[in-house]
Amino acid sequence: MAKSELAEFDAVFSEIVEELTKTGLKLSEIEDAYTWFKEAIVYNVPHGKKNRGVSVVSSYRRLAPNAKEEDLHIARILGWCVEMLQAFFLVADDIMDGSSQRRGQPCWYKKEKIGLIAINDSFFLEASIYSLLRRYVKGKPYYMDINELFQQTTLQTVIGQCLDLTTGPPDGKVDFSKFTMERYSAIVKWKTAFYSFYLPVALSMYMAGISDEESHEEAKKILLQMGHFFQVQDDYLDCYGDPEVIGKIGTDIQDNKCGWLVVTALELATDEQREQLKACYGRSGDDDVNKVKAIFKDLDLEKVYKEYEESSYHDLIKLINKASCRVPREVFIDFADKIYKRKK
Amino acid sequence: MAKSELAEFDAVFSEIVEELTKTGLKLSEIEDAYTWFKEAIVYNVPHGKKNRGVSVVSSYRRLAPNAKEEDLHIARILGWCVEMLQAFFLVADDIMDGSSQRRGQPCWYKKEKIGLIAINDSFFLEASIYSLLRRYVKGKPYYMDINELFQQTTLQTVIGQCLDLTTGPPDGKVDFSKFTMERYSAIVKWKTAFYSFYLPVALSMYMAGISDEESHEEAKKILLQMGHFFQVQDDYLDCYGDPEVIGKIGTDIQDNKCGWLVVTALELATDEQREQLKACYGRSGDDDVNKVKAIFKDLDLEKVYKEYEESSYHDLIKLINKASCRVPREVFIDFADKIYKRKK
Repeated sequence: MAKSELAEFDAVFSEIVEELTKTGLKLSEIEDAYTWFKEAIVYNVPHGKKNRGVSVVSSYRRLAPNAKEEDLHIARILGWCVEMLQAFFLVADDIMDGSSQRRGQPCWYKKEKIGLIAINDSFFLEASIYSLLRRYVKGKPYYMDINELFQQTTLQTVIGQCLDLTTGPPDGKVDFSKFTMERYSAIVKWKTAFYSFYLPVALSMYMAGISDEESHEEAKKILLQMGHFFQVQDDYLDCYGDPEVIGKIGTDIQDNKCGWLVVTALELATDEQREQLKACYGRSGDDDVNKVKAIFKDLDLEKVYKEYEESSYHDLIKLINKASCRVPREVFIDFADKIYKRKK
Repeated sequence: MAKSELAEFDAVFSEIVEELTKTGLKLSEIEDAYTWFKEAIVYNVPHGKKNRGVSVVSSYRRLAPNAKEEDLHIARILGWCVEMLQAFFLVADDIMDGSSQRRGQPCWYKKEKIGLIAINDSFFLEASIYSLLRRYVKGKPYYMDINELFQQTTLQTVIGQCLDLTTGPPDGKVDFSKFTMERYSAIVKWKTAFYSFYLPVALSMYMAGISDEESHEEAKKILLQMGHFFQVQDDYLDCYGDPEVIGKIGTDIQDNKCGWLVVTALELATDEQREQLKACYGRSGDDDVNKVKAIFKDLDLEKVYKEYEESSYHDLIKLINKASCRVPREVFIDFADKIYKRKK
């Protein structure tokens, strides 16, 4: 079931590329731009895990068990809009972070002839969301809600990205005063959880006619907590995951990122270990990176993480069982099951 | 009158900054991000000529001579939305072009501690447009039209920016085969004319209840032609304008830009002059730049420009007089008068 949902989702991608580019490719004065954009879409949008996109469709199925194929198609389009929103952010984040790899291939801006033009390509990816909404959703009663939801989610993610970039600036100047669990939680919530967890479910809710604030607030609470765990896990995998499996070489330590591992380490560290971290964190030399990893090992962060993973799962299930909103529990359980115990 | 329109427009800016930041500044977990964003808005949005923004208000006055103060206030907010759209693009364009100065001050990304974080700040500026629309326009009958207009104008500008960046890539490799007047016209139309000329008037039309396609198509035709002349003039000023007056040091020659001067020069040049241009254009050395300027002088481009300015003005007035749409001629004449004979 889950596999065929992904296959059906994937099958819609070529239609999306076609819809987004066909008019532009036929207009000679802008044909060259669209040839360029088509490449940008195909390179940057479809190569992720697509959990976010597919979850719009699976949530919608739960909310509308007798959904018509026509509406499932719209749900898939909206799922791809979530994937495009993410691609928009990832293309730009990679430039700002100075990353080299993404999803097992070179970052878009690292490719020959692209460079900083990638910034403009990220704008195109964002604009494409609204082109798709106009094409597929205009006329539906939830058009405006979904339009505003994408706009607000974009703003939330931009806020989170700002917190992230200004907490651990990639200039080698380590300032641990800002590396608190409180700040970490804020970055995660705003930079990742809204767009990755609340957005897909909220889209399916609007499609199913659930637009009241109470339902959305309750779903948001559960989904943001799920998003928090997801990011902790992502930070863990950045250091302890297999690069072959996660599709990138983790560079959070080098990039001076305010990640869960370093924040937890700072909470547990002796004064001496804290000084050592200060000297080595946020530097690109292998020796420095290895010293940081050695301290993580001394503090047994792998074990701390495993314990956190267990307790966070139980807390989440408790929250879901307590919920009283119009969204069936399975929507949240489905999502949680995909995330916990993932390896990539 | 014109001066006081600008003064009243300027007076609204502090309200906009307040509206965009007050909630965020009060929420402790994202307060730091909003302190940052506030600086980005104040640095990047209000220091231009503001012709685009003010023209929303002056067009609206022409379309609704008995406009209520309440609606004039909305027109000013929409004018600031146009200024924010421009700020969004300029912040990003300066990074992509490697510019150093903008509006008489260093480019935002050139400032200490900013750098590529400016990309995220440009996203914030864009998102702010939709925050303002939600805050001031939601509930009005033209809310959706204006929302879509901003989205489509953004896409059009991104298309133009792509054409611009890929026609004269800033990597020193000069390829004059793409430097045609046809390509030049396409860049101008998509990159500048839609957002600078059609957008402000279209906003005022929607506010005044004019939403039929014929009226918009007719206005667009006139305004895009005006935009074309404006960009030719801008290219001329980049080389021949006084840096003190235009607020920047022109670098189109160094940046390998497909501008009106070089495209016109290539149309008029002898084979020898063409070879010389090929050797010197798109290079940052003073000698190279001066050689290009000497060829421009030999071809008497100043005179060619003056003649173009005259004839283009007459053509435009002819087009305006021929128009039959619901928009009074004064809307277009006002706009044209601001542009022709400008020095900055």
